[in-house]
Amino acid sequence: MAPTGLWLIGARGSVATTAITGLLALRAGVVPPVGCVSAQQEFAYVPLPDWDEIHVGGHDITDTSLEKRAELLAESGVIPHRVLEAVRPALSEVDDQVRPGYHPATHTGTQADAARALSADLSAFAERHGLARVVVVNVSSTEPVFPPLPEHDNLETLEAAMAVPGRTVLPPSSVAAYAALRADCPFVDFTPSTGVRLPALTALADRRKVPYAGSDGKTGETLVRTTLAPMFTTRGLTVRSWAGTNLLGGGDGMTLADAEHAGSKLASKGRGLATLLGREVTAPLHIDNVPDLGEQKIAWDHVSFDGFLGARMSMQFTWTGYDSSLAAPLVLDLARFTAAAHAAGRTGALAELAFFFKDPMGSDEHRLAQQFSALVDWAGTL
Amino acid sequence: MAPTGLWLIGARGSVATTAITGLLALRAGVVPPVGCVSAQQEFAYVPLPDWDEIHVGGHDITDTSLEKRAELLAESGVIPHRVLEAVRPALSEVDDQVRPGYHPATHTGTQADAARALSADLSAFAERHGLARVVVVNVSSTEPVFPPLPEHDNLETLEAAMAVPGRTVLPPSSVAAYAALRADCPFVDFTPSTGVRLPALTALADRRKVPYAGSDGKTGETLVRTTLAPMFTTRGLTVRSWAGTNLLGGGDGMTLADAEHAGSKLASKGRGLATLLGREVTAPLHIDNVPDLGEQKIAWDHVSFDGFLGARMSMQFTWTGYDSSLAAPLVLDLARFTAAAHAAGRTGALAELAFFFKDPMGSDEHRLAQQFSALVDWAGTL
Amino acid sequence: MAPTGLWLIGARGSVATTAITGLLALRAGVVPPVGCVSAQQEFAYVPLPDWDEIHVGGHDITDTSLEKRAELLAESGVIPHRVLEAVRPALSEVDDQVRPGYHPATHTGTQADAARALSADLSAFAERHGLARVVVVNVSSTEPVFPPLPEHDNLETLEAAMAVPGRTVLPPSSVAAYAALRADCPFVDFTPSTGVRLPALTALADRRKVPYAGSDGKTGETLVRTTLAPMFTTRGLTVRSWAGTNLLGGGDGMTLADAEHAGSKLASKGRGLATLLGREVTAPLHIDNVPDLGEQKIAWDHVSFDGFLGARMSMQFTWTGYDSSLAAPLVLDLARFTAAAHAAGRTGALAELAFFFKDPMGSDEHRLAQQFSALVDWAGTL
Amino acid sequence: MAPTGLWLIGARGSVATTAITGLLALRAGVVPPVGCVSAQQEFAYVPLPDWDEIHVGGHDITDTSLEKRAELLAESGVIPHRVLEAVRPALSEVDDQVRPGYHPATHTGTQADAARALSADLSAFAERHGLARVVVVNVSSTEPVFPPLPEHDNLETLEAAMAVPGRTVLPPSSVAAYAALRADCPFVDFTPSTGVRLPALTALADRRKVPYAGSDGKTGETLVRTTLAPMFTTRGLTVRSWAGTNLLGGGDGMTLADAEHAGSKLASKGRGLATLLGREVTAPLHIDNVPDLGEQKIAWDHVSFDGFLGARMSMQFTWTGYDSSLAAPLVLDLARFTAAAHAAGRTGALAELAFFFKDPMGSDEHRLAQQFSALVDWAGTL
Repeated sequence: MAPTGLWLIGARGSVATTAITGLLALRAGVVPPVGCVSAQQEFAYVPLPDWDEIHVGGHDITDTSLEKRAELLAESGVIPHRVLEAVRPALSEVDDQVRPGYHPATHTGTQADAARALSADLSAFAERHGLARVVVVNVSSTEPVFPPLPEHDNLETLEAAMAVPGRTVLPPSSVAAYAALRADCPFVDFTPSTGVRLPALTALADRRKVPYAGSDGKTGETLVRTTLAPMFTTRGLTVRSWAGTNLLGGGDGMTLADAEHAGSKLASKGRGLATLLGREVTAPLHIDNVPDLGEQKIAWDHVSFDGFLGARMSMQFTWTGYDSSLAAPLVLDLARFTAAAHAAGRTGALAELAFFFKDPMGSDEHRLAQQFSALVDWAGTL
Repeated sequence: MAPTGLWLIGARGSVATTAITGLLALRAGVVPPVGCVSAQQEFAYVPLPDWDEIHVGGHDITDTSLEKRAELLAESGVIPHRVLEAVRPALSEVDDQVRPGYHPATHTGTQADAARALSADLSAFAERHGLARVVVVNVSSTEPVFPPLPEHDNLETLEAAMAVPGRTVLPPSSVAAYAALRADCPFVDFTPSTGVRLPALTALADRRKVPYAGSDGKTGETLVRTTLAPMFTTRGLTVRSWAGTNLLGGGDGMTLADAEHAGSKLASKGRGLATLLGREVTAPLHIDNVPDLGEQKIAWDHVSFDGFLGARMSMQFTWTGYDSSLAAPLVLDLARFTAAAHAAGRTGALAELAFFFKDPMGSDEHRLAQQFSALVDWAGTL
Repeated sequence: MAPTGLWLIGARGSVATTAITGLLALRAGVVPPVGCVSAQQEFAYVPLPDWDEIHVGGHDITDTSLEKRAELLAESGVIPHRVLEAVRPALSEVDDQVRPGYHPATHTGTQADAARALSADLSAFAERHGLARVVVVNVSSTEPVFPPLPEHDNLETLEAAMAVPGRTVLPPSSVAAYAALRADCPFVDFTPSTGVRLPALTALADRRKVPYAGSDGKTGETLVRTTLAPMFTTRGLTVRSWAGTNLLGGGDGMTLADAEHAGSKLASKGRGLATLLGREVTAPLHIDNVPDLGEQKIAWDHVSFDGFLGARMSMQFTWTGYDSSLAAPLVLDLARFTAAAHAAGRTGALAELAFFFKDPMGSDEHRLAQQFSALVDWAGTL
Repeated sequence: MAPTGLWLIGARGSVATTAITGLLALRAGVVPPVGCVSAQQEFAYVPLPDWDEIHVGGHDITDTSLEKRAELLAESGVIPHRVLEAVRPALSEVDDQVRPGYHPATHTGTQADAARALSADLSAFAERHGLARVVVVNVSSTEPVFPPLPEHDNLETLEAAMAVPGRTVLPPSSVAAYAALRADCPFVDFTPSTGVRLPALTALADRRKVPYAGSDGKTGETLVRTTLAPMFTTRGLTVRSWAGTNLLGGGDGMTLADAEHAGSKLASKGRGLATLLGREVTAPLHIDNVPDLGEQKIAWDHVSFDGFLGARMSMQFTWTGYDSSLAAPLVLDLARFTAAAHAAGRTGALAELAFFFKDPMGSDEHRLAQQFSALVDWAGTL
């Protein structure tokens, strides 16, 4: 395929650093594509950009270099030391492509100014590398829930408000989405933040004829839930309650355990369960910050269900994973599939990418197996 | 549909007693069809026999009555007391339909004689109740592995050997299958015993144009495994090992923990995992007899897998279920689907019933979601 | 020993009903004393009241009879049907001894009036049955945290405030404790509610020379924690975090999941952990209401710890218990030990009963094994 | 204390390598003594050899150097890279002290010759370093069960048999024990192998007036079991079954999963449970070799128990640990305590070291808390 850009919002975070390191390692042939959906047999004939056709850049508000970040991830078991050493020079080159991101606390101009600057970064990146297209993927920290405003419903009104000095009419994720669309770049939201999910922004996407996808990458507990729930329903077993606890360290633990931020995450996690089970069930859910876990995430779920003649039964699972290791290859997959969709002229919400998301845009299908079938079928048409 | 017979081999065991009690309770409208696959929306337009169109009889080698057995199951939490009281008289009527089963230790004639007597029971049952067909389902205890014999490959040779006094050329499950086929009855094996799985017997089934299905009902640990394994493969995650431990009480615990009997069970459980994962993995598996668990079965599985860049992750699940509660509704489902298939003129191995089995005959598909889709599609053609 | 009274605050709740049913069953000889600490060999020579020397009465604010409540508990697996039938008439007799309890929402007079009425009930009960002493045990629902007031520090000031119409200066548990002490009855708090834990009330206990004990019965997760934590410390292993989730149904689930009520419970649970481990650790803790669990309670704990050279290790446990089954025999134990202590002239906080409590009064010892040794030694001196 | 020798049988295995690396790191002050029992406050005044007073040597049958082995352990998460670098030169010096061990398959002379050579190594080591005493600790691989022979009962008969060319009258662990005792060295068995546990050998120990201790270090599942079991008994709860599964990789996984070797391990693990619970319970136990776990060990236990009125309850735990990380500090503890005991003139089985062992010699006490108290009391008398 033609040279393709992958522009990461939050380019120096754990997920982005792992994705970039992994891409460089895949390109260098020092690791197999474990955890990459798009590398599987089913997609062998889909016109996807190869590992060495993907150029990476991004925005971030931190100065910590990718190398430094990768070293920390090597300490925590996410990146093997030998892989880090193999890609260290290339990592430094990518780091040079990272531009300062937008954050309301540090930005002084209007949000319109901010968006303009972000768009310019994207265009310059594309031009510099001769890219056919740039897929923007948001992997920055989950934002607190942003209050709905009337301006969100109409693009003209929104743009007018963005131009008012001192007004913060959009959360950073939506400023990033707006900037991407303005630069004719597809936008993928791997987080539960607002991003493109505002009528004014999806209208803009339609107008610019670029596709978008999201939201909230399905990497751990929800991945298992959307796999298991259909087992109960196809067998006619009645789930009575489904309780969950998530222990996580790292920056994510701090961000998500905070009630306000967790708001969007918990909502995103909960939305699918009722759909999957066909009705509401008791489903308490917690996210706790346990710093000593580092990059590790541990989820425990308890499912209580009724069988024949009302027999009371239960199932529990424990999931011990590295969120960055689970998310990073999906970020690469999303870049590849979205680039191919863009090349094929697809627009609007890419519902067939539901396989990757907790809260899929354009789709009500939460069952993992069905999502995979849909992905395979769709990819075959690209 | 026309009146249909359900003939249970092992008619007074836990699974059969629960299935019969449940059928009577469903017929009486005192319970909803929880755990019944065939009662779901997807099969609303399939011509299946209704609950009150199914007549039950069976063979067993024990004298303990269905009522007595149901009382014990009520003590252990499988059958609610109020359900037992609601169906007690009807249960006693079914018990009258149970005929002495075949067991080599107590039988004195040839195996040909034994089979003839079993066939005669089936024909008499069908005639007595004016049944259009009788589906025979084996739910008796798992047999020890039976050694392969040359006679198993050819029907004529087999029948000659069965007529030799003192020869035990078939295990009881296969005598039952032979008798069923000779009486033109479809045969379903819910156990991992040999049953119809001998060339001579499948040839007989083909000659009599009756369908058959099996084997080994997928009710607990394997149900979960065939649900979870595709999650790992579709996500490109590399499973390194999948260890399992099963604790069970009841007669099943005693039978299966015994190494010889467990042989067929463990083989049946293991067969699917390699197929599901696309390669062999370390997969130690144990079945322990823990009498105090009664009818309960507890399985613990530990899955170790690699993610992106080789990150080491794991998942564990615990399953606490009542095997009889899980198996019984499936026995009713199998009777209904097999009867409909027979009515529709289907013959041979019913591969589309793979959804119900650990070791499906006629199918290599072990993925639960795909099995369900196949079942729905197939049922729509009946 | 002399006839002894056991007066239960919350006499028709799950714990009380199970304790009373069990006492009657023990007296009738239809069950062995499983779960009773005081019935063990170590206490064979301690002068404790026998099962048939204990007379039961109590206060409650509900009208649901003990029989009705016991029937519900039989449905949920706490009380076997045969035991209920064996003690049904005796249960009804005990129910006649239950008097209306105090609740600020329904009471019209002053708190002084209320306490006087409660004390009169206790005295009448003692007189009616010729009891040498009456041990009052609070097993009512956990109260919301009650705000500290200056009146709590001094008995005279407190009593003056209690006499002011319309003032609610004490929570119900403390009114009950006050009434018990005024009637010269030992008071035991099996809940985390305030109870006797106010300077004015412990001063009253000292003045009346009656012992008291508490608080918050150690029945499940905390029982395991106080057993396991010393394993880590004696082995020099550094616990980094100890996370816990509790799923419970029943009235308890509703009461405790409510943030305000959980306040006292969570505080009580957390207090011991830091003491046990010798320092503060990350210890998120949740209590969720999962109604379908009924009387069952499921706790999951995740312990992360460091070993030699900083090796990262972990331990998880799941506890599935019936809280009432675990609490009830301890209530009987506490009645017996407290009665013996009173008979032996002990006063003040009975620190040696720490074995029974999450948050032991008069003791900083949380290690279960040490608590048991202390109990055995102390009992030998009675 | 005076310079003390620690002589390890299996000096280049995982446990020994971790212990040696750790000792060097402690001596260099680059790690705190996490996991070291003897470093705790309770033993501050016991005359134990300091870290820099302990000199290490040993026997092994492999040529793989300590450095090489430590590198592998660093890869698997047992030894931090920075620790390895800090002690690398010192590790190489220790490696020079390792002498060829005895193995019947490679040895050509009599067992008497072999023992003589081993004793000479010990004496030379002591002399070379001016050691007051040398404690020999066996940390080699678990042996297959060795058949009992009449020669084991009498020292003279045994020594005569050892001198017969071609006779293998003792397993390697017992040859090592014999050699240690002959050189007047205390012998500690950290494995379940036979070691000193033969009448002829304990008689020799008594004659030489040297103490000995063992056997089978209590590091994981059994550590938890001996902590939890007393919880059930002191609370009067009736354990009905206690099932366990152990998954382990490394050489240990291969050795122990092998039925013959596991024989001694399983026996050692089972012995304590009945003692702890006061009666036999159903207790199936498995050890599986799961190579991908590397140095990690995962144990899952399921405990089923009865409470008041027969209520059925259960508890499960999962333990994820590094056996070498758990064992290594205990090896150092045992060297220190045994050296102090020897210095204090103690002889025979050191029953007070039961805290460290699955199958303690000279003691029937398996309860961890009681074992710790006994250790503290005893250490105070040294």
